[in-house]
Amino acid sequence: MIEARAVRIVGKGDVAALTLGTLGVRDAAPGEVRVRVVAAGLNRADILQRKGFYPAPPGVPADVPGLEYAGTVEQVGEGVRELAVGDRVMGITGGGAMATYVNVHAREVLRVPEGMSLTDAAAIPEVFLTAYDAMFSQGGLGFGQLVLVHAVGSGVGTAALQLGLAAGARVVGSSRTDDKLERCRELGLRDGLCVRDKTFAAEFAELTRGVLADVILDTVGGAYLADNLKVIASQGRLVIVGLLGGAAAELPLGLLLAKRASVIGTVLRSRSLEEKIAVTQLFARTALPWFESGRLKPIVETVLPMTEVREAHTRMEGNATFGKIVLAWD
Amino acid sequence: MIEARAVRIVGKGDVAALTLGTLGVRDAAPGEVRVRVVAAGLNRADILQRKGFYPAPPGVPADVPGLEYAGTVEQVGEGVRELAVGDRVMGITGGGAMATYVNVHAREVLRVPEGMSLTDAAAIPEVFLTAYDAMFSQGGLGFGQLVLVHAVGSGVGTAALQLGLAAGARVVGSSRTDDKLERCRELGLRDGLCVRDKTFAAEFAELTRGVLADVILDTVGGAYLADNLKVIASQGRLVIVGLLGGAAAELPLGLLLAKRASVIGTVLRSRSLEEKIAVTQLFARTALPWFESGRLKPIVETVLPMTEVREAHTRMEGNATFGKIVLAWD
Repeated sequence: MIEARAVRIVGKGDVAALTLGTLGVRDAAPGEVRVRVVAAGLNRADILQRKGFYPAPPGVPADVPGLEYAGTVEQVGEGVRELAVGDRVMGITGGGAMATYVNVHAREVLRVPEGMSLTDAAAIPEVFLTAYDAMFSQGGLGFGQLVLVHAVGSGVGTAALQLGLAAGARVVGSSRTDDKLERCRELGLRDGLCVRDKTFAAEFAELTRGVLADVILDTVGGAYLADNLKVIASQGRLVIVGLLGGAAAELPLGLLLAKRASVIGTVLRSRSLEEKIAVTQLFARTALPWFESGRLKPIVETVLPMTEVREAHTRMEGNATFGKIVLAWD
Repeated sequence: MIEARAVRIVGKGDVAALTLGTLGVRDAAPGEVRVRVVAAGLNRADILQRKGFYPAPPGVPADVPGLEYAGTVEQVGEGVRELAVGDRVMGITGGGAMATYVNVHAREVLRVPEGMSLTDAAAIPEVFLTAYDAMFSQGGLGFGQLVLVHAVGSGVGTAALQLGLAAGARVVGSSRTDDKLERCRELGLRDGLCVRDKTFAAEFAELTRGVLADVILDTVGGAYLADNLKVIASQGRLVIVGLLGGAAAELPLGLLLAKRASVIGTVLRSRSLEEKIAVTQLFARTALPWFESGRLKPIVETVLPMTEVREAHTRMEGNATFGKIVLAWD
């Protein structure tokens, strides 16, 4: 057992619920490693958890947020051969990553690419694994297909944009501000779609000259459901990974049948360990090398000290950020 | 060119729009056979087409209904080796099956099982291919999984029930009348669910003692959407093949994400020839032999002469039928 510093959620509600405290972290169990966390990416789920809407799954501390980390292996559990003390690692976890130590299964970690800082690395796991799993494993996106990425300037959006282009797909990215679309052009976005008043079907059709979306990666949910069904192609897959635009909306079933489309809901956090390992290992094999070549890169809006976790939440809730906010221990 | 007798839709609306007339049918093109139709199954789509809601796709007569047929090969097109004149065949087609002759691609037909009458055979293609494709190809139903089949006493329902049991799945069947559930018990249904007032989640949970549905085969659509999401399992697949209960409803996206569920719309009619061939050939290889052994059987409510097509529509619209209505030429 070791005493870690940790962000703790006391009660629920606004950012005042976030405090710095301590957390007892046990030794690494067989198959696990204990990671000394250097930095952790902030996610929308942390905000939901702070508000009391997204309780931690069993097996992780209930009141310590943090779904991803980057750091170094500090202790190696029995039977672990893949990793050694001092290795630089990053990964997703069900919670508790905003602590100076976290235990994770050795197969659930990714090696940090050579030459990359740990604060950059902390911006990778959650958004790149989410976008990868949603677009390819759930959505079946392939070479030459068209993917519509909503909120393309967000953490998941900037990851999806890069992954989609790497996979040879045509990426149309939507955002509510021209400024974010402009910044995405530097990441290779050619087809930017500025969404006003929650509708985009007409502008999408004009932009693509009638080509429809084989896959839609959507973090918005309710507000975009109707127009998503309008722009989806025959046998298209609408993969919903977030509900920033509402948790319910009318589904036009006539269009769903006529287009033989699928609406797929997905989350990473509640998955079983073996599923998370499978996602991680697939990503490690296929996408991770692209970070070393520089073709993929983490998009970091800012790095703040962990002591400024309240400020970090406030900025994310302001929706003006581009890419990820990373929190670092001193 | 040959002159066939045919049901024709004149105008649109109630059953008075249905008349008997003639239709010129060309010679079988290369790769096709011309079938002398003995009987054709009636489908909900025929009623929708009569009402003007479901126009025929390109390439089939616009005003001759009929999506399935059974008969004998009357003429063989160039290059066809699989079939010979006189062979007993059945199959789906995009329209025009309610005529005494219809041209179909030779790979799009199924052989009628030995010893089965052509009026029984006419009750097979549409409902068995629809149920097979929806449950297995779209829904990924497997051995030991639980499938909820709505309207289990319908044509698609009775086919799905038999196919699900043949595949080693547990089948829960819903109906709005106890009488239809009782008749389904003779087909092997153990878990019958009588739906009153469009809700069934509580009764389903009681019946299965909390086991959820891996796959739901739904012909109802809107009215059942909310409860379908309640009873679906983690990573479950809701496959919607019909909209008898409304074409739009609110989709509870929170549940969709939490359960990582999929909502899949599907239809057979509008698919390309090559897709229909693929569905047909897969069915021929896997399910068709089960008809010869008697494990699968067409469920025929009644056989009426084609001259009584109006009466057939009226009966189907009355919703009191069990299984299929077949129309036969004299």
